[in-house]
Amino acid sequence: MASGLKFGRFVGGFVCGVGVSTGACITALRLYLTKQQLQHEETQTESAVQRLIKLYGLPLTGAETRSYSNHIQSYDQSRRIPRWVAEHLSNNKLVGGADRKHCKFKPDPNIPQCFTAHNEDYLGSGWSRGHMAPAGDNKFSEQSMEESFYLSNIVPQNYENNAGFWNRLEMYCRELTERFSDVWVISGPLTLPRVGEDGKKAVSYQLIGKDDVAVPTHLYKVVLVRKDMSAEPLAMAAFVVPNAPIGFDHQLKEYQVSLSELERMSGLTFFPKLDQTHPLKNLCSVDSCELMDFERFTLYITGRKVKSAKTLTKLEKIMAELKEAEITPDDYLVKLYLEKKQELLQKHRPESKSG
Amino acid sequence: MASGLKFGRFVGGFVCGVGVSTGACITALRLYLTKQQLQHEETQTESAVQRLIKLYGLPLTGAETRSYSNHIQSYDQSRRIPRWVAEHLSNNKLVGGADRKHCKFKPDPNIPQCFTAHNEDYLGSGWSRGHMAPAGDNKFSEQSMEESFYLSNIVPQNYENNAGFWNRLEMYCRELTERFSDVWVISGPLTLPRVGEDGKKAVSYQLIGKDDVAVPTHLYKVVLVRKDMSAEPLAMAAFVVPNAPIGFDHQLKEYQVSLSELERMSGLTFFPKLDQTHPLKNLCSVDSCELMDFERFTLYITGRKVKSAKTLTKLEKIMAELKEAEITPDDYLVKLYLEKKQELLQKHRPESKSG
Repeated sequence: MASGLKFGRFVGGFVCGVGVSTGACITALRLYLTKQQLQHEETQTESAVQRLIKLYGLPLTGAETRSYSNHIQSYDQSRRIPRWVAEHLSNNKLVGGADRKHCKFKPDPNIPQCFTAHNEDYLGSGWSRGHMAPAGDNKFSEQSMEESFYLSNIVPQNYENNAGFWNRLEMYCRELTERFSDVWVISGPLTLPRVGEDGKKAVSYQLIGKDDVAVPTHLYKVVLVRKDMSAEPLAMAAFVVPNAPIGFDHQLKEYQVSLSELERMSGLTFFPKLDQTHPLKNLCSVDSCELMDFERFTLYITGRKVKSAKTLTKLEKIMAELKEAEITPDDYLVKLYLEKKQELLQKHRPESKSG
Repeated sequence: MASGLKFGRFVGGFVCGVGVSTGACITALRLYLTKQQLQHEETQTESAVQRLIKLYGLPLTGAETRSYSNHIQSYDQSRRIPRWVAEHLSNNKLVGGADRKHCKFKPDPNIPQCFTAHNEDYLGSGWSRGHMAPAGDNKFSEQSMEESFYLSNIVPQNYENNAGFWNRLEMYCRELTERFSDVWVISGPLTLPRVGEDGKKAVSYQLIGKDDVAVPTHLYKVVLVRKDMSAEPLAMAAFVVPNAPIGFDHQLKEYQVSLSELERMSGLTFFPKLDQTHPLKNLCSVDSCELMDFERFTLYITGRKVKSAKTLTKLEKIMAELKEAEITPDDYLVKLYLEKKQELLQKHRPESKSG
């Protein structure tokens, strides 16, 4: 190899001056060196580096894809949060008996122990455990709902955002299954830069717990919909939402970004196999992209509270709060309330007798 | 599937109360659901998510491994810098005619255009283009030296660190090839957290240029050495160095960390195939881990300056600076100086004649 190189150097010294462009220089070199010589050289040097792979293995980034019953994810070992979580939503998956009250957040056994987050990192941190693939998309299967509580599907999320805007965005994605047979959603965290007082651009994010779990500055969702099995994907939209409280005065469309913008922000390439010759429609032009408004959302939340009320006093307090907000219960909520009242009354009576 | 789920739900309602642990609940459920039912369910749900992969492909993180003539790397598309760069050093590769003055920094054609850094990002940024696999490890091959100038092998590095401490660390790695037949080095950037005034831990790093290239807070090198081809790897050391000036009053050993510490910082798993039953020795106990001292390093740098001097005035200035630093030129430098002086005198004469 050394003699080949000396020959190369001699030619290089002849052809390439400081003023000659490197590209031209290399091209000229290649004309002189025979193909065989180059191949010989490459094979020899490659094997020296490749030896490391064979013997000890190359560094693992942990960015490989992991499949679960109803979601697929890629994990960020350096930040202890997912990079992206992909899921499929359809009408039939949104009904069933799986209930989040039987589920517990827990470390994902598929993530190496030294890179996983733990519940202790979140507790008392001031940040909630925010699902990327929502628990509510997994009513059809206890197992897939369980898996959605793995901390590999969770990021530190602002409580108000998690219970409010993000929750409504998740509900909108579920609503899409009424109008589209297939809805694919990819969700994940972002750490976006800000321009500081010194005019310099910088990324800055908090870490929580012993495991240094990264608190994302933003969260994204990419939504891809298809009318039916045989059709091409119809429409797509990408949203980037700050990891902070967002009130009802903000519209979802304010947070829409182009897919290429999101790709640049995230460093990810979405749908790499998607046929680029058939451009997708903008989801927000074929569908509303409107989240549930304050009144409907409050009725929905009140319904959930009513369902889980444990005493009559609590139940009446929930309904009083609704009245205070000047919202009239709809028929569905009235029905839920009366059923729960009956249930609690019956439950109360035998207890008083036995007590 | 729905009927199977209803059955599952019924069983769930029977076995699982709020007080029963979820794990026990799931185990009980599994006893009731036949294996066939579960498999049928899993296959159906898996195919729905898997359809996304088949049709449009899953998000690419770009963390895949790329091989070059004399290095292998994994690139961080979200930060526009490498995650890690692995290389092999040996005595025979450190000699040859490849010269960095024929090389130019340039975007790596193997990195997708939207995720690559450009020279313009670095120029005027206040940060130098710091090699991870050093150019100086590729004297044996013009091609591999060229490839070391791809911006996929470069991070924004403090100028003084790059020319000083990091340079001396690279030289130490080359020096190791005199005592070990195989030296593997893995280098890369880190963005490490700091505890702020508010007591919270946070990661903060600057971005430069239009491409938002991340400026790492630290750099690492992992060095693995082997005595000869047939032997087991002998010793290893990992170093984490701040991306800031480090003077001669600091020793390399001050920056040594355990491999598991570095793995946690970086999110990487190094040498995953390495036989854990034969623990490696600490490189700094079988070798010096001492970098070149101020005098030797100044002589070395002066030698390089002498070699590239273009005028007699410049040459004399270089030697005067050495005298000012109260360092006596060694025989090698004196030889270089005299040769260069002769060369410049000869070059000067015909020019004056023709002028």
